[in-house]
Amino acid sequence: MVENQSQDLELRRVYLFAGLDDVQLDQVKRGLRVLRLAESERLFDHGQAAERFFLVRSGQIKLYRLSTGGAEKVIEIIQPGQTFAEAVVFMERQVYPVSAQALSPTELWSFENRAFLALLRQSSDTCFRLMADMSMRLHAHINEINGLTLQNATLRLVGFLVRQMAEHGSADGRLELPAAKNVIASRLSVQPETLSRILHNLSADGVITVQGRMIQIHDLERLQGYLD
Amino acid sequence: MVENQSQDLELRRVYLFAGLDDVQLDQVKRGLRVLRLAESERLFDHGQAAERFFLVRSGQIKLYRLSTGGAEKVIEIIQPGQTFAEAVVFMERQVYPVSAQALSPTELWSFENRAFLALLRQSSDTCFRLMADMSMRLHAHINEINGLTLQNATLRLVGFLVRQMAEHGSADGRLELPAAKNVIASRLSVQPETLSRILHNLSADGVITVQGRMIQIHDLERLQGYLD
Repeated sequence: MVENQSQDLELRRVYLFAGLDDVQLDQVKRGLRVLRLAESERLFDHGQAAERFFLVRSGQIKLYRLSTGGAEKVIEIIQPGQTFAEAVVFMERQVYPVSAQALSPTELWSFENRAFLALLRQSSDTCFRLMADMSMRLHAHINEINGLTLQNATLRLVGFLVRQMAEHGSADGRLELPAAKNVIASRLSVQPETLSRILHNLSADGVITVQGRMIQIHDLERLQGYLD
Repeated sequence: MVENQSQDLELRRVYLFAGLDDVQLDQVKRGLRVLRLAESERLFDHGQAAERFFLVRSGQIKLYRLSTGGAEKVIEIIQPGQTFAEAVVFMERQVYPVSAQALSPTELWSFENRAFLALLRQSSDTCFRLMADMSMRLHAHINEINGLTLQNATLRLVGFLVRQMAEHGSADGRLELPAAKNVIASRLSVQPETLSRILHNLSADGVITVQGRMIQIHDLERLQGYLD
């Protein structure tokens, strides 16, 4: 009973099942199968008929394609808690678009495409609950990506400034940028608007002052602290 | 006619409309309204009945909530090309969960919830196409988030190593980590497994050799190069 409850909790963490009621979750559980793969074991091949989708519980699954020359292109590494091959459920042509192989000993739960599709066809409310959840997740991801991109760009710029300072800075903390800002942005693989935003943030924090290409570093230690 | 075609292209870049056929897209376009907001102009308030969702074409929209004390919590900044309030379409209670305000002069296209919902109810195939697209996007986002997280953690660790080297390293490039790896990981806000993975990657690149807490830096310049 307790085990059942913890299984329900684990299933409801999967975005596809998060909005299901108890009866619907029971339907999903009836088709659930536990799979254990050894390291390097293949789960399915590209082009094979797709009847099931999967949740990784432990280990890792590599999704990949082979080129006509036989070269392998890794599409994705699936980590514990993530599902894969579930988009196929919604497609007309139910074949796996990639091959799947275990990178380490891996435990999976697999679910029947047909049963899940039947459940969605039963009620458009279930479809709509799922779509609402998916579109909120898409927004949350975009937020996370934006935040990480800004962090990344900040780390790159601060690393660059600290190095330039060590090599070319004056004793009183003045540093002339070695190129125009858009050139620096391009060299650091940062969007020019992002670079401006970061310089603005660092100025607002009182760590630097910017005048054209001239940067006055007020507090090198705090600037370096951004790298921690 | 040309304008019509470019409008169609722009609409099909929106994930909600990407899989629609021409007839369905025409239905969406019939309810389309163009809106222009001045800087600071409010679009809707939290709790207001939601009849439309939006695509930002230029400018920025801030989504926010006010606390009971009146403090503003920014939930999201919506950039050009992004939609917002579309999750409400799929919800039973059609009210805006946040307030929306233009951060700069902003052009929007707005769409009718009712018309879009009717379109989805007409055919479960359309729902399924949308869900397939959404679940592939969710996977792509997770990939991007994983890649950015790894980059971010690499930048943090390299920044840390370069600074430690300048302060405590020996002339022949040896550096003893000042604490156990899991402590360093925590200080750099990096998962311990991620830290191990990065040390492994840097070793595989021939930039460093790791023996317990002892790091031998073979090529300081290449190590610093990761910060560019």
